[in-house]
Amino acid sequence: MAAPARDALQFPDSDSRPIEDYLPPPFGVQITRLDYFDKPFVTLTFATSLDSQLAIAPGVQTVLSGPRSKAMTHFLRSKYDAILIGVGTAIADNPSLNCRIEGVGGYGGEGLVGQPRPVIIDPSGRWQFTEESKVMRLAKEGKGKAPFIIAGVEPSNTRRAVLENVGGKFLVLKLSGEGIEKAGSTWHVILGALKKRGIQSVMIEGGGFVINDLLGPGPAYSLIDSVVVTIAPTWLGKGGVQVSPDGGQERLPVTRLQDVRWLPLGEDVVLCGRPNVSLR
Amino acid sequence: MAAPARDALQFPDSDSRPIEDYLPPPFGVQITRLDYFDKPFVTLTFATSLDSQLAIAPGVQTVLSGPRSKAMTHFLRSKYDAILIGVGTAIADNPSLNCRIEGVGGYGGEGLVGQPRPVIIDPSGRWQFTEESKVMRLAKEGKGKAPFIIAGVEPSNTRRAVLENVGGKFLVLKLSGEGIEKAGSTWHVILGALKKRGIQSVMIEGGGFVINDLLGPGPAYSLIDSVVVTIAPTWLGKGGVQVSPDGGQERLPVTRLQDVRWLPLGEDVVLCGRPNVSLR
Ligand SMILES: NC(=O)c1ccc[n+]([C@@H]2O[C@H](COP(=O)([O-])OP(=O)(O)OC[C@H]3O[C@@H](n4cnc5c(N)ncnc54)[C@H](OP(=O)(O)O)[C@@H]3O)[C@@H](O)[C@H]2O)c1
Ligand SMILES: NC(=O)c1ccc[n+]([C@@H]2O[C@H](COP(=O)([O-])OP(=O)(O)OC[C@H]3O[C@@H](n4cnc5c(N)ncnc54)[C@H](OP(=O)(O)O)[C@@H]3O)[C@@H](O)[C@H]2O)c1
Repeated sequence: MAAPARDALQFPDSDSRPIEDYLPPPFGVQITRLDYFDKPFVTLTFATSLDSQLAIAPGVQTVLSGPRSKAMTHFLRSKYDAILIGVGTAIADNPSLNCRIEGVGGYGGEGLVGQPRPVIIDPSGRWQFTEESKVMRLAKEGKGKAPFIIAGVEPSNTRRAVLENVGGKFLVLKLSGEGIEKAGSTWHVILGALKKRGIQSVMIEGGGFVINDLLGPGPAYSLIDSVVVTIAPTWLGKGGVQVSPDGGQERLPVTRLQDVRWLPLGEDVVLCGRPNVSLR
Repeated sequence: MAAPARDALQFPDSDSRPIEDYLPPPFGVQITRLDYFDKPFVTLTFATSLDSQLAIAPGVQTVLSGPRSKAMTHFLRSKYDAILIGVGTAIADNPSLNCRIEGVGGYGGEGLVGQPRPVIIDPSGRWQFTEESKVMRLAKEGKGKAPFIIAGVEPSNTRRAVLENVGGKFLVLKLSGEGIEKAGSTWHVILGALKKRGIQSVMIEGGGFVINDLLGPGPAYSLIDSVVVTIAPTWLGKGGVQVSPDGGQERLPVTRLQDVRWLPLGEDVVLCGRPNVSLR
């Protein structure tokens, strides 16, 4: 085993035990679906302020959670096959999307063991990544897996070359038009495609559009197996990127969690739960 | 001691102990102010959804917290001389504003011992109360103190008669125009007036306008000694009454709490903290 990297994080067992029930099997329990649909285990996870904001303004990366919650996020990342974000977050944050828990590949461990596959949803090719984008650089340095980009149109040869050069892949899917409704939602298309590529579990980290879409009244809600939200004791104030699903005219149904557990972690609290599908 | 009323609530010591530090002296500690201003001990307390909403829509009373958090709110009410709300809440909710913890006056205790004074801020006389309004009826039944209404204009004789008939009082204060800025804010005027009438501690319960005004960038923020927020594991969705202070153009300063404690209570969590005045 290689020496742990200096920037590796630690997350003690005593902190992780209460979260395990919400993780992919064998720890957690996948919701049994009436309509059988073959998909990965899905956890929605993000950090907000007390006023439910992901960032103080669109495009401004905002540090919300403290060191222990940050370590928790990286612990979670080590437990999933993939970590998924929308293109808005890729553009705003230039995120790393790797796992820096001590002992995973690149941080003391062999190869890329424990590293999740970064997945970015970019239907119309808005993300202007280069080989210097963090996620590409980490893949090249052996500190993270190369990303999958979910596209709605064929990428240019240049984009394809940069991505494939670090070992990544475009998945071109039909994300709009006829057929989506029959599939259920774009989330059914995306998660079905990931499962077919062997991804058994995915944590969805954001951003605002992605989370509100999944928590909203649409059919994608039932695809979520668990939710892990970190809340920091700060109000960011009006005008930020807010998590608050759009219930449309009827304002219903309200999204309530069940099997709830609150875990104080430093200055923050971590909320674990499962969507209450029966309320729908 | 009278027999406890059937609708009395109980709040066990084990639940209350971790909250005591945030209560008025002798338990809690009042923030020492550089600019000496004689005011009651002030706690801001309310319940929100995960998306920081007090109610699913303006004017729609929304049950958010579970039975244990509800008992906590009533326990808190027994520890303060007064409980204050804005007229929007009085109109929307027809609230009781009394304390129903077992052992206080009207609920097993003598007289009105442990009952807080309801205070409603209604600058322009919008609240069309009658003797049937809950707070008036409870006062008449000996289950709560009679309210003080803070007005900006002299009330009509009819309104005054209804209020004084149950033992209540109008406090007519200058809440706008010249002089407010010199006083600090309308909150300085209101809290100063309450202190002069012997009120040593007040919990401010809402609603949206009141909370956002106090948490906002204005000078009233420094009047808050502690904050006790209950969060329920539900997203209400866009369009409700939201707690999210308006930081104005600059979006600063961010409102962060210090001395933070998170207390899981049934399905909800209770956040205790103190405003970080030094950040301002
Ligand atoms: N605090 C946290 O935990 C956290 C985590 C992540 C992000 N963030 C913050 O969130 C902000 C970004 O959020 P955002 O709302 O702008 O962007 P986002 O949710 O990251 O991305 C939204 C975009 O992704 C594409 N997309 C996502 N899901 C799709 C689907 N199912 N079907 C089709 N297209 C889909 C769409 O792209 P097109 O419009 O091109 O079709 C959509 O507009 C940033 O400020 C970031 O800092 C915070
Ligand atoms: N979940 C909870 O814990 C909770 C608690 C309380 C309320 N609520 C909800 O909150 C909602 C009501 O909120 P709201 O924002 O409409 O009303 P609100 O905050 O209760 O009352 C606002 C009004 O009170 C007056 N006011 C308050 N403070 C003042 C000050 N310092 N100086 C001058 N005037 C002052 C103003 O009246 P004028 O406009 O007449 O000048 C102001 O418009 C309701 O839906 C209620 O259910 C929820």
